[in-house]
Amino acid sequence: MSETKPSSNPSSNPSSLGDEIVARIDQLAAISETPEHLARIFLTEEHRKAADLILSWMREAGMSAHLDAIGNVCGRYEGERPGLPALMLGSHYDTVRDAGRWDGPLGVITAIACVADLNRRGKRLPFAIEIVGFADEEGVRFASTLLGSRAVAGTFDASVLNTRDRAGTSMRDALIQFGLDPDHIGKAARARRELLGYVELHIEQGPVLEQKALPVGVVTAISGATRLAANLTGFAGHAGTVPMPLRRDALTGAAECIVAIEQFCRSDEAGLVGTVGYISAMPGATNVIPGKVSFTMDIRSQSDMHRKRAVADIVRQIEAIAKRRELALQIDVTHENRSVPCAPWLKTQIAAAVAAEGHAVFELPSGAGHDGMAMVDIADIGMIFVRCRGGISHNPAEHVELADADTGARVLLRFIENFRAHGAVNS
Amino acid sequence: MSETKPSSNPSSNPSSLGDEIVARIDQLAAISETPEHLARIFLTEEHRKAADLILSWMREAGMSAHLDAIGNVCGRYEGERPGLPALMLGSHYDTVRDAGRWDGPLGVITAIACVADLNRRGKRLPFAIEIVGFADEEGVRFASTLLGSRAVAGTFDASVLNTRDRAGTSMRDALIQFGLDPDHIGKAARARRELLGYVELHIEQGPVLEQKALPVGVVTAISGATRLAANLTGFAGHAGTVPMPLRRDALTGAAECIVAIEQFCRSDEAGLVGTVGYISAMPGATNVIPGKVSFTMDIRSQSDMHRKRAVADIVRQIEAIAKRRELALQIDVTHENRSVPCAPWLKTQIAAAVAAEGHAVFELPSGAGHDGMAMVDIADIGMIFVRCRGGISHNPAEHVELADADTGARVLLRFIENFRAHGAVNS
Repeated sequence: MSETKPSSNPSSNPSSLGDEIVARIDQLAAISETPEHLARIFLTEEHRKAADLILSWMREAGMSAHLDAIGNVCGRYEGERPGLPALMLGSHYDTVRDAGRWDGPLGVITAIACVADLNRRGKRLPFAIEIVGFADEEGVRFASTLLGSRAVAGTFDASVLNTRDRAGTSMRDALIQFGLDPDHIGKAARARRELLGYVELHIEQGPVLEQKALPVGVVTAISGATRLAANLTGFAGHAGTVPMPLRRDALTGAAECIVAIEQFCRSDEAGLVGTVGYISAMPGATNVIPGKVSFTMDIRSQSDMHRKRAVADIVRQIEAIAKRRELALQIDVTHENRSVPCAPWLKTQIAAAVAAEGHAVFELPSGAGHDGMAMVDIADIGMIFVRCRGGISHNPAEHVELADADTGARVLLRFIENFRAHGAVNS
Repeated sequence: MSETKPSSNPSSNPSSLGDEIVARIDQLAAISETPEHLARIFLTEEHRKAADLILSWMREAGMSAHLDAIGNVCGRYEGERPGLPALMLGSHYDTVRDAGRWDGPLGVITAIACVADLNRRGKRLPFAIEIVGFADEEGVRFASTLLGSRAVAGTFDASVLNTRDRAGTSMRDALIQFGLDPDHIGKAARARRELLGYVELHIEQGPVLEQKALPVGVVTAISGATRLAANLTGFAGHAGTVPMPLRRDALTGAAECIVAIEQFCRSDEAGLVGTVGYISAMPGATNVIPGKVSFTMDIRSQSDMHRKRAVADIVRQIEAIAKRRELALQIDVTHENRSVPCAPWLKTQIAAAVAAEGHAVFELPSGAGHDGMAMVDIADIGMIFVRCRGGISHNPAEHVELADADTGARVLLRFIENFRAHGAVNS
């Protein structure tokens, strides 16, 4: 592994990285469906405007750049000679509704800032650098996430082209209206041999780095998640006329389950998280004992085996609670995605860059999903997290300090400059 | 206290009481807004038709009968001489929507059946009997309950005349359209000196008598109730990115409160009941930690002091849970009504009638509200509960066995025939 001295910063003008990044974050945030609530949705006018702006930044940074077949922005900075395999960097530039400005754009803008810095110094590396700004990670318009990165990974499911948005427009028609050919999405796909790896810088979207007082973290894995829906059925009754021992109250049963889930996850020492985000009690009147309750569960862990064992344990606990309370239970898995580990060799190189920038190396899983979940099908992946204030994301209050944006850029730049392809470390 | 032998039933044709009652329950149930879902609402055509039918039954039973100023049906069976103070019997003949057929009408129809039996035998008592069928106990149309009995008790609040139904019709206009004069509601009021007591027979609306295998029960009190609304505010967050120890989850906090409320009420030995009937978690998405939860509480006891102490204890527990979890808590009393005890002297005479009919005397509170809550302002009250299947009420499945309807009528008839005014027992 290449060792670098923390004192030798490779950037030609390091102090400007954070300034430039924040300025561009603001520029991009101005491209929104409505000025008050940031929303930049797939295949809209805002998508087009943002793409044009990012493509211009890429070209300004010395890259060739184009919009691909699904609407991703793609830039390439050649290495020491043309046509070398590429280290791919990126993130997404679509947003949720009423979004923050950092989730996604920070990774795209930071990567461009790093390449621009290399370009200013006329520095070429023994590999190409590519940057992708994915057009749809959040899945707001068509309720299907990772559309941009799936197209690049060659795993885009053509059946989603028939999905319609709320206005009734199909994805197929929206692509055509945008000027893209839905039958050519396959052209966005890249081959494994073209890529040395995919590395994404992203805000943490959680409070851990802030709590640890660290500007950046090394991501270990994108946690797998299991989502379940539970229905408990007891017997509705008058809140005044049914003595406590004769009740089959579905809500007190659900409450016991929720407390048990929390207890179970809290006592886990491997970072398991479990959330009940939705609950509904029927009939839902003040003076009626709930006869039926529905609630959801979302269980995540960076280890698939650990998550599956936890889900099984939690389901067993819920079954026992339902049985003891004479409640009928239906429980279904509504969604499941596997954990996507970051490649150890990329983690090592990212960690070295963090250490070289003078920061403690701290590893953490990503509880949120990212484009790496799709990119892992054609490349090893790595991720750098940047601290965000209060762990708040998907919210206008989402915020990254300029100093942390700068640190993220310095770490990414150092990582790039010291990057060695897998297996090439000792060569 | 007068003693009667269980074998000597005073009814001239006892086996017919239950048959006649069930037949009339069915006749009245046919008077409904829609044929599929029983609904008989205040000041509607159905109210009119039902009133006419009940008035005809009253007259057939040898009573003078009239519709009073609020739409109650009122019948009077004179005693040994005209103008004697009256034992008042009654219940209500309005229904909730998609109602059962027994809640309310059973008390009116049974009382008429008893008077009819006396009348067939030419029997006059040393007091008059009056029967009231109250026009609005459920409060479906104007969201204000006990309108009929409040008018009779002289506690009708004229300000509710301005309340509008969902169609925008005020109660004042509805009364006028029905042919009543809203300015004359005061004429429905009765004086305390005219009444010897108010006794209501009603279905239990709970499962206790069924569980005890008893056809009837003696009501001790109409339980007082306190309703509260609680709001817990924590901090919303991503279900994947916030480790368990850093969460301020409003829903797990609420779940702990719900379990604690149940625990508290279950361990109470004086019949306290506590219900959380409504809960809402915001934002309510599967993958978001709830930042805010609202829930209701309904706490009832036959003793006001016991209920108040319980509410204070429960609030203290909720406050402790909120504090430990760093959740902001707002908790408000949204409704409170005092317990209405049944008069011991009436309970004693009802119990004697139950025993005389050969049944075990079992006392229980009424967790549901009844017209007695209004009538207590002008008379001592007593109640007889009749077993209903599964404790189900306010539901088309509401059911009373013919044999139990018959038992209820025999108990009421025996009570009437043996009735001694308060203070007159030893005279």
